[in-house]
Amino acid sequence: MILGKVVGTVVCNKKNDSISGARYLLIDKCNQQCVTKGDYLVALDLVSAGNGEMVIISESSSARETEDTFNKPVDALIVGIVDLIDENETIVYKK
Amino acid sequence: MILGKVVGTVVCNKKNDSISGARYLLIDKCNQQCVTKGDYLVALDLVSAGNGEMVIISESSSARETEDTFNKPVDALIVGIVDLIDENETIVYKK
Amino acid sequence: MILGKVVGTVVCNKKNDSISGARYLLIDKCNQQCVTKGDYLVALDLVSAGNGEMVIISESSSARETEDTFNKPVDALIVGIVDLIDENETIVYKK
Amino acid sequence: MILGKVVGTVVCNKKNDSISGARYLLIDKCNQQCVTKGDYLVALDLVSAGNGEMVIISESSSARETEDTFNKPVDALIVGIVDLIDENETIVYKK
Amino acid sequence: MILGKVVGTVVCNKKNDSISGARYLLIDKCNQQCVTKGDYLVALDLVSAGNGEMVIISESSSARETEDTFNKPVDALIVGIVDLIDENETIVYKK
Repeated sequence: MILGKVVGTVVCNKKNDSISGARYLLIDKCNQQCVTKGDYLVALDLVSAGNGEMVIISESSSARETEDTFNKPVDALIVGIVDLIDENETIVYKK
Repeated sequence: MILGKVVGTVVCNKKNDSISGARYLLIDKCNQQCVTKGDYLVALDLVSAGNGEMVIISESSSARETEDTFNKPVDALIVGIVDLIDENETIVYKK
Repeated sequence: MILGKVVGTVVCNKKNDSISGARYLLIDKCNQQCVTKGDYLVALDLVSAGNGEMVIISESSSARETEDTFNKPVDALIVGIVDLIDENETIVYKK
Repeated sequence: MILGKVVGTVVCNKKNDSISGARYLLIDKCNQQCVTKGDYLVALDLVSAGNGEMVIISESSSARETEDTFNKPVDALIVGIVDLIDENETIVYKK
Repeated sequence: MILGKVVGTVVCNKKNDSISGARYLLIDKCNQQCVTKGDYLVALDLVSAGNGEMVIISESSSARETEDTFNKPVDALIVGIVDLIDENETIVYKK
């Protein structure tokens, strides 16, 4: 999984019918200290992540392994909101 | 999913038989403000995206999770046309 | 899908048994004008693509969605031979 | 599979319900001599890898091919702890 | 599929139980002339590839499409040993 920071939302009115009610968030990939990279992707949110939060994103077919995304054309899913990261016994990120 | 801008069409007469009637669009990957990167890919269009529009593209096996693409050798699908993107409470793209 | 130019063939006598009779082509990735990038991959050919032709390649699990590649360890398949590409109303490639 | 060095842990309290009890490790990708690249990812640990150990990581849908990760939205799994790597008859890494 | 050169072996004693008896090889990605790139990956070997040989590697879920790798967390498989590559009618690699 990769780390990303929620920086916005993406609104689509005309969508493929099999995706309805989805909330797409704009994600900027970040390092372990939540420093963003200016490398953006769009991910489906099922954990109500808020703006500015660091999240874990699962990509590819793994993004479909939930009740809500099963059989949907989704390839990036927020699977968790990061509370804390330690690196070599030092806390490098705290929500 | 990634963001891209529709910049053209790709025509193939000789194709693998299991794909018929598909409309392939030429996509230039873009950032959250629709600034293109000169990094091209070919995506199947099922939402009638028009030239110059910003779209969301789902890749890999997720591109097959629709009635039309199920069991087809397609690895990039336009799943929505972007109407609006906000980044940190500011609208950075509007159709 | 990505665009590539057929530049050669790859011959393997010792292969994993589940792939027999496959014709592997050497592909150099290219842009929308068929300018190659010097970035090579090997793809299975089911449409009899010829040397120098621009092709569309489907990658990952999508490469297995044909009768011939179903259940085979193939991750790149030529799905069409490009006849014409237009970009912003201008023809940028013609076979 | 790719090589990575375990450098920390990632803690998430709010997670997608279908993942419970998972232990996420912070991985820094490394070369065959365990020299890290500063390129981070988050992987699920099922082999009790320790901090500083070099591990093999399987990505994408392959990460779900275990009893514990079957049908879970996981796209990176530690599948082994590296004991030794030889390159051209020379041992380049030893645990 | 990608081209790589076998440069060594990777030994793991502690592994995820569902992979037993697997032989992992250290692969350095290479171009069509077997010039290596210093970009390493670990692949499962089922064709008894030898050190220094150029091989074709299938990645992602396609690596599981053999009797031995079915339902195993493997994402890179050697599917053939390259004997010969021709590029634009010239032989650029011969075993």
